[in-house]
Parts: sequence; structure tokens; C-alpha cells
Amino acid sequence: MSSIASVKGTVSFSQGPEPKNLIQRERDAATFDLNEMNYFLEGSKERAMETRLFISQFERDPVMAASPKDYDATKAEHRAITIQKIDRLSRYIEVETFDRLERRLSIVSVFDPSFHTRLGVHLGLFLGCIRGNGTADQMQYWLLKKEAAYVKNLYGCFGMTELAHGSNVAGLETTATFNEEDDEFIINTPHLGATKWWIGGAAHSATHCCVYARLIVKGKDYGVKTFVVPLRDADHNLMPGITIGDIGAKMGRDGIDNGWIQFSNVKIPRFFMLQKYCKVSSDGEVTEPPLNQLSYSALLLGRVIMVKDAFRWSARMVTIALRYAVGRTQFKAALAKESDPESQLLNYPLHQRRLIPLLALTYAFSNGANVLQETSTATMDELDDAVSSEDKQALDASVEKMKSLFIASGSLKSTCTWLTLNTIDQCRQACGGHGYSAYSGFGKAFNDFAVQCTWEGDNNILGMSVGKQLIKKFAAVKKGEKATGILDFLGGYEKLAGTNPVLEAKDLKEPKKILFAIEVALVRACIRADQILESKNGDTDFIGAELVTLSKLLAHFFLLKAFLDKIEATKDQPNLVAVLDLLAQLYGATVILEGFSGTFLTFSVTTTEAIAHNSTEHIAELCSKIRPHVIPLTDSFMMSDMMINAPIGYYDGNIYENYMRTVQENNPAKNHKAPYSAALEAMLNRSSLAERQRFEREEEAEEILSN
Amino acid sequence: MSSIASVKGTVSFSQGPEPKNLIQRERDAATFDLNEMNYFLEGSKERAMETRLFISQFERDPVMAASPKDYDATKAEHRAITIQKIDRLSRYIEVETFDRLERRLSIVSVFDPSFHTRLGVHLGLFLGCIRGNGTADQMQYWLLKKEAAYVKNLYGCFGMTELAHGSNVAGLETTATFNEEDDEFIINTPHLGATKWWIGGAAHSATHCCVYARLIVKGKDYGVKTFVVPLRDADHNLMPGITIGDIGAKMGRDGIDNGWIQFSNVKIPRFFMLQKYCKVSSDGEVTEPPLNQLSYSALLLGRVIMVKDAFRWSARMVTIALRYAVGRTQFKAALAKESDPESQLLNYPLHQRRLIPLLALTYAFSNGANVLQETSTATMDELDDAVSSEDKQALDASVEKMKSLFIASGSLKSTCTWLTLNTIDQCRQACGGHGYSAYSGFGKAFNDFAVQCTWEGDNNILGMSVGKQLIKKFAAVKKGEKATGILDFLGGYEKLAGTNPVLEAKDLKEPKKILFAIEVALVRACIRADQILESKNGDTDFIGAELVTLSKLLAHFFLLKAFLDKIEATKDQPNLVAVLDLLAQLYGATVILEGFSGTFLTFSVTTTEAIAHNSTEHIAELCSKIRPHVIPLTDSFMMSDMMINAPIGYYDGNIYENYMRTVQENNPAKNHKAPYSAALEAMLNRSSLAERQRFEREEEAEEILSN
Repeated sequence: MSSIASVKGTVSFSQGPEPKNLIQRERDAATFDLNEMNYFLEGSKERAMETRLFISQFERDPVMAASPKDYDATKAEHRAITIQKIDRLSRYIEVETFDRLERRLSIVSVFDPSFHTRLGVHLGLFLGCIRGNGTADQMQYWLLKKEAAYVKNLYGCFGMTELAHGSNVAGLETTATFNEEDDEFIINTPHLGATKWWIGGAAHSATHCCVYARLIVKGKDYGVKTFVVPLRDADHNLMPGITIGDIGAKMGRDGIDNGWIQFSNVKIPRFFMLQKYCKVSSDGEVTEPPLNQLSYSALLLGRVIMVKDAFRWSARMVTIALRYAVGRTQFKAALAKESDPESQLLNYPLHQRRLIPLLALTYAFSNGANVLQETSTATMDELDDAVSSEDKQALDASVEKMKSLFIASGSLKSTCTWLTLNTIDQCRQACGGHGYSAYSGFGKAFNDFAVQCTWEGDNNILGMSVGKQLIKKFAAVKKGEKATGILDFLGGYEKLAGTNPVLEAKDLKEPKKILFAIEVALVRACIRADQILESKNGDTDFIGAELVTLSKLLAHFFLLKAFLDKIEATKDQPNLVAVLDLLAQLYGATVILEGFSGTFLTFSVTTTEAIAHNSTEHIAELCSKIRPHVIPLTDSFMMSDMMINAPIGYYDGNIYENYMRTVQENNPAKNHKAPYSAALEAMLNRSSLAERQRFEREEEAEEILSN
Repeated sequence: MSSIASVKGTVSFSQGPEPKNLIQRERDAATFDLNEMNYFLEGSKERAMETRLFISQFERDPVMAASPKDYDATKAEHRAITIQKIDRLSRYIEVETFDRLERRLSIVSVFDPSFHTRLGVHLGLFLGCIRGNGTADQMQYWLLKKEAAYVKNLYGCFGMTELAHGSNVAGLETTATFNEEDDEFIINTPHLGATKWWIGGAAHSATHCCVYARLIVKGKDYGVKTFVVPLRDADHNLMPGITIGDIGAKMGRDGIDNGWIQFSNVKIPRFFMLQKYCKVSSDGEVTEPPLNQLSYSALLLGRVIMVKDAFRWSARMVTIALRYAVGRTQFKAALAKESDPESQLLNYPLHQRRLIPLLALTYAFSNGANVLQETSTATMDELDDAVSSEDKQALDASVEKMKSLFIASGSLKSTCTWLTLNTIDQCRQACGGHGYSAYSGFGKAFNDFAVQCTWEGDNNILGMSVGKQLIKKFAAVKKGEKATGILDFLGGYEKLAGTNPVLEAKDLKEPKKILFAIEVALVRACIRADQILESKNGDTDFIGAELVTLSKLLAHFFLLKAFLDKIEATKDQPNLVAVLDLLAQLYGATVILEGFSGTFLTFSVTTTEAIAHNSTEHIAELCSKIRPHVIPLTDSFMMSDMMINAPIGYYDGNIYENYMRTVQENNPAKNHKAPYSAALEAMLNRSSLAERQRFEREEEAEEILSN
């Protein structure tokens, strides 16, 4: 035993590692104002202060706050706790405006995604469906008169997907047959495949469901419409003809009671049909919607939230991994002297290259999410105004904007959720073994987040749909149509086409040139996709992979543009801009240029020299320039420890003590014999093999038996 | 309600989807013999039949068989069940040879990784450490006399990693101080950071631990050696000075009781030190080992198993995703007629492109794993012989082979585990929403497998280490040293250098040319790494990313070579070869050529035309050619339903009925009120806001209070 024993809280016989000092040293050396950087990320000082207020209310509330105890909760416990949280939050909802509530909820997702989604199914999807598809009176009735908007009296779920139909909403098979005699609809599940499946809230919570079903009137199928169908009565017992089951264990989101629903001749009054766009009269006359596609607008809000999620989740993950990488030491540098201490993980160029680009990406997410949210709110408001004023011209203009928004949000939702899922796992791997501890947060985050790549538009299907719209728009532009909004660069397609490289090694330090290179890549990829399409008789299925690539490039165009615009708007703060410019460069150099090097080279957008210089020099140089700012840059996210919820990533940087404390609190060490220990001990202390074989295989037996 | 009602087992009012017919149709059209293909995958008919025998014994055993119930087990239940399984398997171990046991265990991993690892910690790591570091007598004593080899009397754990030290084994801080007076070692944990951490089996099971600790004799530190330290007595109570805690919740592998251990002046007899290579005499004289690096050979076996795991896990995952993709229909093809049915998922070119390359990769894994296993067994046997015969020349030769094996196994372990983790999540995403159900197997597989990217050599650290050895070898070859084994192509480096493209579009159909292209890429990447290194004063940290790329390329070289060699050896079976050749081409075109397009283009190994042709034509063409063989190719893995353990991927293809049955069995639908329903109902049925505010904010109060 070492001769130097010390007692500082606990006994120690030699000096252990002190990660908190390493982190604090870098925190002290910040070159910019963290509050100002936080305003940049949140969009404005006002939003930033509001976010902090929300966080303080959550973290001070013992019911709603996240804690490491969550990582040891069973599925049954998660579900019960989630209802307590919703109950608590419903008291806020009663006294808050809808806009503010939406922003408050966007914070919830990152520290308790099950809580967020279970409530979101009711507030966002169920009520969103009524808002989107119901008349003003129907909305008034269900949301306000029945008080559903305050999570009161009724709890809704969203009955879209079926066992055999997910993304293809138009192919759903549940039927709503009009019965003129009784002035009612009969809802029915015709076969197992049409069972409503994955319905969040159905298993235990929901009293009502917005059911997507085929409207059948006088034998004619009018396609899929929406109906409010009561599932449970005021005593929470199932209505006649309703069968509901629990969908059971999932990869993540344990707090949500997803269920399946079968309808066996369930009768609802005619006026339970949501009839903003489609009406059925008492004598069976059907008035069809002028704008069919708008009836899925409930999903738009989900996309906006998911892009914001990409920012907050990534911020949380990179904060944990980077604090750990600064506090943890491992091996010595290759050129270290014998007497040098072990090196901080983040001083290794490879480790910088694994994590710092993810930090840059997170910064790019922040403004992309803000811009998408603002555009979305403005466009939805405009559309609502146009619909209620019945102004045809305004309606057309809004619909055009809505289409643009669907393209942008589709490309961003799919691209950002994919990137975030990757970020979560890369951050986990960067924390080595400790990344695998549930208490480091990555495992639950991955499991909870993974569904976002599939939800509300599977990423590949969304990506293909965006790509298709892009090449359609490109074809129209070639025929003289004007390109607007985010796609206005298509107008100059003739100058961007060809095989002329537009990005050389010397241009890499100018993110605007990378932005331009994406425009060029998009145009050339559109042209190429067109050519293939022509050779395949217009079979868009054949260019699925190309379409998804187009969608990803478009998302990066949006993100990089939003990032650069915001940096431009911040130019009066040189201390911020100095670092932000490096981050924009790095985002361009890694996620975009390196990530799409095959595409950029195939279309000669750039040169092999530029790609080689980028990968062997430029990226490493940028990483090493950003390296000293990493702690201030992650501190600027202003994630409190409650939001971080991972002891290896807490603010104070006291990694090992925090981690050990959590492990001990959740698993008291005095329980060192397992509840099943008797079985284990019986195995180890079993009698000899010969004895257990009743000596039947021993020599004596052989002698007797072989006589 | 539809007029066509039918009763076939259950009532159905119209025809639902029948995925099983779609799958059976393709099964009937197989163009090759599935048994022969299975022998190809397993290496030989003998191995294949043995594998089936093992599987039958597991699946017929109600204790050891996996089932969908596993997905609903809590951590506590998992741990208890795992011990029952080990107890059951220990009866096989008593009567089986070690080689056979090893192959039997390699099957366990894919259907119950916790079971595999919890037992593997004892059999593989603890006993492996004694075999690797103990004398023949020590091995005889612990393994046979004490019967540890039969999981009897004692249960071992492997005390290597510490809270503050993982990969850097030489930096571990636990001390083993020799006390000459009592002829014993004193094991001590000097501070929190040196707490043994992540120790599988420690929390509940282990009676003994192979502790990695610094040998201190007469004040001198001899570096890290291994010691057998008893943790619990025969009554399973902790020994004096031993503190053990449960490490708690992890991302996966719930069945393993990982723990932490602190030693406070724990005394063990001198002869508990494992002394094959390093001895301490009773008067404190230390004999140092001639071959220090060999003492970590316990880890080699783990690498071999993990490459085999990559094959089996990938086989399981792609079987589930591909059966689902064949049985599931969704949307209609882009050029479909109105009357056409919905299209099978796998008929979409994008879906083919997402999954079929993973199938090709799995086929490549199979032979790579077999070759690595054979080489490893042969080399270890040779080394053991050389050590026991004390033949210096044979020892040198063995050590040289061992070094090659460390390079190959390091590159394969890191590359294959990364690729498999990706395969698991890609397969999940390809199953859309149903991929997120726990019962589809992907979530648990991802969580359980993820640790393999970190275990027994973090992939990045392993990759860097392989890359370093490669450029070291390259430098030696340039100075005239002979390159042998897998690296023999380095000998011709002068012809491979330069900037001459060696792979053009027309060559893509010849996988041998891709193999050659990898050689060229490796040589040119070595040269480039050398140049950077020179400009950075030999700072290998700076080229970390390049080193990892070298390691990945080397792994693909190994895998593709093994695959092509085996195809060559199968040439008398043209029906097999026809399909295998397509798979080899596709593996080359996607995982290798597309995956490393940046590297291949940067070093001019290939042309942009070839890359463009590959990505827009060649890959799609290969996928469509392999498409009809997908069901027979997955059937050839011969994974029984017990191994698959995912109703959407069972053999009969009855996707929806199997899935619904599992959901209902695990979550009886009659429980439609949650245990916590009262809290939920109280929230919904709460009194009005005004009432709960005691009417303090109503007009009457305002009147009174403002008077």
C-alpha cells in the first residue's frame, strides 16, 4: 500500500484523476460571452430566457424532473410515472397560451421523450387532427367545450396506421360506412391486417380516437377520411364493439401505452365525422374536399418539432461526450516524454475528428430548426386566414407556400433525425465502456430517438417524396416556371450544369462556396436523375437512392444557409463570429463535403485534390482550432444537469465521483447477494458427476452390466 | 361492413394480406440446393450438421431456448433466468470436449448474448487468463482439481478494467505489493479511479477474480501482472477487505451482473500469482517474462468469437428484414396499372439497395470468420507446443504468426462489429414501424451488440493499432524485409504505387479486380500516411483517422479474399457459384467500393466514371439479379424460429398472425385498464379550474378584494 494516505471526504491512498480541474481550466479560458452564444442558439435573448424559465420549472418539480432513477425504472413504472407527469403538466396547460405551451413542450422531449410523446399524441395529433380536419364548431366543441385542450374529460389518440398499412395512408382498410336509416357511420375492421396498430395512448389512456377510415356511402368508396370515435366511457370502460390491446414492449419510449384497436360494427353519429373539407348530408350526399392534401397537416407540426429535437438531443449528447473527452485522460501522446501525464482524450486528433464535427452539426441544427419553426408558424397562420376568409387567391398562394414547406420540412425531418441518431451512437462510442452504462444516457437516448427515423413519414419514403418533388420542380423550371423560396437557385440551372469544378482546395475556408457547391451538386444530380429516368420510362422507383441523396443535399443547403445567414446577422459580435465561422467551415468540410464526397466527385463539383486536402489537412486544422473552445461551446447550450441526466457529463466535471454516487444510489452495494443466489450456489456446490449419474457409468456398473 | 364475411379460424369480412404465400412462392423457385449452400456458409458439411445438432438441443430445452417472452423480462428477471441457463448448460460442459464446447457456445451468442457472455466471462476470460498466464500446474489446479472448467465450486470474473483506465492496460493502478514477511501479496485499490469497474459476474456470481494489478516488490513497480483473488467464500459471502457493488443498468446485456470491486488490503498467498511468464520468489526476487505481449492472449479468443458473431447476428437480422420485405406489400410500383396489387417492399429498387448489400456482406462474413477461427486455433496450438517444448526457433516463428494474427483479428474485430451494428439498425429501419417493436428483435439486438464495438479493444483504438503495425511493416518492407501471410502483396508495392487507375467501369464484374484495387489502395494510403507522418515529426496521433481507414481496408481485403477463395473451392457446384459470384460482386461494389469511394478516388485507384457507373447502374443491376434468390439465400442460414425469435421473420412467413399472437400472449388484451388507471381517471375527471382555485380569481373575489 502506498505510503501517502489522505482523507478528503473519503480515504485515498494516492492521488486519483481530477477531471473537474481539467474542465474548469478550459471553462476559465472562454473567449466569448456564453449568454450571447446561447441567444444565438435559441434565436434571441427573449426565447433564451423563456427556455431557461421552462427548464427551471421542470427541474424544480420533483414529479416532472428527470433523474438517473429513470434508467432503472421498468416499463410498468415508466408508464405510471408518465401519467403523473402529464397530470402535473396539465395544470400549466390550463393557464398558458398554445404557442407558449408548444415551446414549453419542445423542452420536454429531450429530458423525457415518453412524457413528451404521450402528451403529444393527445395535444398534437388528436387535437391537431380535429383542428386540421374539423369545422370551427367541431373544434370549439371538442377542444374547448369538452375541455380536451386542457387534458380534461377526454384523452385522444390518433388512429391512422394499421397492422398492414403504415406510410401508405391512402391504402388504409378500416371502413366507415354511412347508414342513412339511423344517420350514423358504422366503423369496422374488416380483417386482421386492418387492425389499428401502434396507436399511442390506446392501450390505457385514450377515451377517444381520431380514426382514419374509408368513407363508404351507398356502396361508393370515397377514400380515407377522419372520424372521432369514442373508445372508453366516462368510467374508462371500453365501449361496445371496441377491442383494445397493449402493443407491448418496444425498442424505447417505455412510458407510452401504444395499443391496437379493432372495431366491430361501432356506431357513431354522422356529425362525429370531421367535416372541414368533406361533408356527408343526412341523405347521403358527399361534398368532396377541394384540398385533399391539407388533411394531413397534423403531421407538419411533428416534423417541425423533430428538427428542434435534433438540435436539443444532439446538444445534450455532444455535451456529455465532450465534457467526458476533456476530463478523461488515456494513454500518453505519441511524442510524449516519459514524465508527461496521460493525455486528455480530446487532445487526440482522431478523437477531435470523431466529436467536434458533431458539435458543429449541432450548431447548424440550431438555426435551421428556428427558421423552420418560424416559417411553419407563419405559413399555417396564413393558410388558416385564407381558409376562413375564403379568399381563393390567398388560398392558392398559401397552398404554394405550404408545398415548399412540405419539401423543406420533409428533407429536414428525415436528414436531421438520421444525423441525430448517428450522433447519439457516435457519442456513446466516444465514451468507451462508460458510454454503455445506462447512467450515461446514450442507450436510452438511442432507443427513444430511433423511432423518429420512422415516425410521421419513414425517412426513406419522405426523402424519396422530397426528391420527386424536386425533380418535378426542376422539370417545370426548365419549361419556364419560376423557382421560388429555397429553390430559387434552380432558376440559374444552366450556369450550374456541366462538369466544371466550382470548389477547389483554396475555397474550403469559405463556407459560402460550399453552399454554392451544394446548389451545383443539386442541379447536376437533378439532371442525372432526369437522364436515368428517361432511360427507364419514367420509373421513379428506379432512382430511389438518387432521390434520397437529393433530399439530403437539400436539407444541408437549408441548414448551412440558415447558419450562415444567422452568422451574418451577428457580425457585430466578432468574438462569437470568430468561433462560429470555424464551426460553419467544419460542418461544411465534414458532414457535407466528406459525407457526400462520392457525389461531389462524380458530378465534378469539386476536385480530388480538394477532397484529399480536406480530409488530410483542412479538417484536422479546423478541429484543432475549435478544440480550445469546446467547453465554452457546450456550456453555451445551457443544459442543466437535470436535462443532461448523465453523471459523466454534469457541469462540475467531477466525472468519477458523480458516476459512482449514481451507481451506488441506484444499486445499494450492501445487496451483494442476488435474490436468486440460492440457485447459483446450488449449481456451484453440486455433488460430483459420478454421484449424480448414480455411479451407473463407473467401472463397477460396467463389470456387472457387461457380464 | 363488407358483404363477404368468412370464418377461417377467425372471422374476416374481406381478404387480408397473405404474406406467407408471397414468401412460399419464392422459396419454391430456389435454383440451388439449400443444404449445399449451408455447408458453404458453415465451412463444411460436418460443421453444418454439428451446428444443427447444437441448435436442436437448445431449442428443445425449455430453460435455454429463447422466446418472445424474453423481450418483456425485467433486468432482475433476466439475471435470474441467465443463471438457470448456465446451470443447465453446465451439465453439457461436464461431458464435452473444449473445442466442441467453444463451437456450441458460439451459437448461444446470437439467441441469448447475456447467457453467452455471463458464462464466457468465467470460461473464456477467467479460465482463459489462467491458461494464458498460469503454469501448467496452476492451470491443472484451478481448472481441473477445483473443477472450475465445469462451472463447479468456483465462478470466476476478469478484473482488468478500472473506473479511470480501460484500454490502457499498462496504466492500471490497482496494486499487488509483495510482503516478504508473510510470503503474500497485498491487493489494494489506492483511490476511487482504480476501482475495478464493469467486471462481468462480479456483482452476484463470482467467487474468484483474475485481478490485473501492478506488481510492487521492494518498492519497485514491475508493471501489470495477474493474480487470482478470492472474492466470496464457499457460503458466497464476501471475503474481508472486499467491497463489491452492482454497476446497475446498462444499454443492454441485462442478464449479466457487471459489478465494481474495491480491495482494501486483501491478502493472498504468493502462489496465487499467475506465474507462467513472471515469477516472484519467496525472498522477493522477480523473474521477468520473455514475452510480455503474450499475456493478453486471453483477448484473442474473444476477437475470433466476435467475428463469428458478426456472421450469425447479421444472418439473423437480414433474415428477419428480408422475409418481411418479401411478405410485406406497400404502395404500388411507380408504373403500376390501377388494377395492380400493392408491390412487395423488396421489389422497390431502393429497398433492394438498402438490404441486399447487407445480405452479401453476411455471406462475406461467413468465410472470413471460418478462416480466422481455423488460423487462430492452429496458431495458438503451435505456440503452446513451442512454449512447452522450449524450442526457441519454433517460438520465434509462432510469435511472428501470432503478430500477424493480432493484426488480422484486430482489423476484423473492429470492422466487422461496426458493420454488424450498422446492419442491425439498417434492418430495423427497413421494417418501418414494426421494426421498432421489441418483438421484432432489433432493439434488443442493437443494445446487446453495441458493446462489441467497445469490448476487448475499443474499435478505434484497435483500428489505430492495426494501422500503425501496417505502416511499420510497410516501412520495413521498403527497407528489404520480406512481407508474409496476408500482407505479402506489400512486397510488390513499387508496382502498386503511383496514380494509375487500376479499376475501370468494365472491371466491376470481376471481384478479383476489386481485391487487387484494395491492395493498391492500401499501398497508396500507406505511402500517403508516411508522408504526413514525416511532415509531423512522426506523430502517429495525427494520422489516427488514416490508420483506422487502413485497418478497415485490410479487413475487407481479408474478407473478400476468403470469400473468393471459398467460391473457387466450390467451383464444381455451378448453381451455388452463379449466385455466390453475384454476392461477391455486390459486396465489392457497395460495402467496399461505395463505402470507400472517397479513398479510392483520392488515390486514383479508380476513376470517377467507374464510381458513377457503379452507383447508378451496376449496383442496381446486381441487386435485381440477386432479388429472386433472396428467400433461398436467407433460408440457407438455417436459422430456426427459436434463433430468429421475431414473429415478423419466422420461417412460415405468416407475418401478421404470428406477430399478433406474440403481442397477445405477452400482453393479454383483457387487461385494458392500467394498474395506474385511477390516477389517469382522476386527472381527466378533475373539477373545474375555478373550483380548484377556490373561486379566488373569479369576478366576485375581484370585486371584494379590490374594494
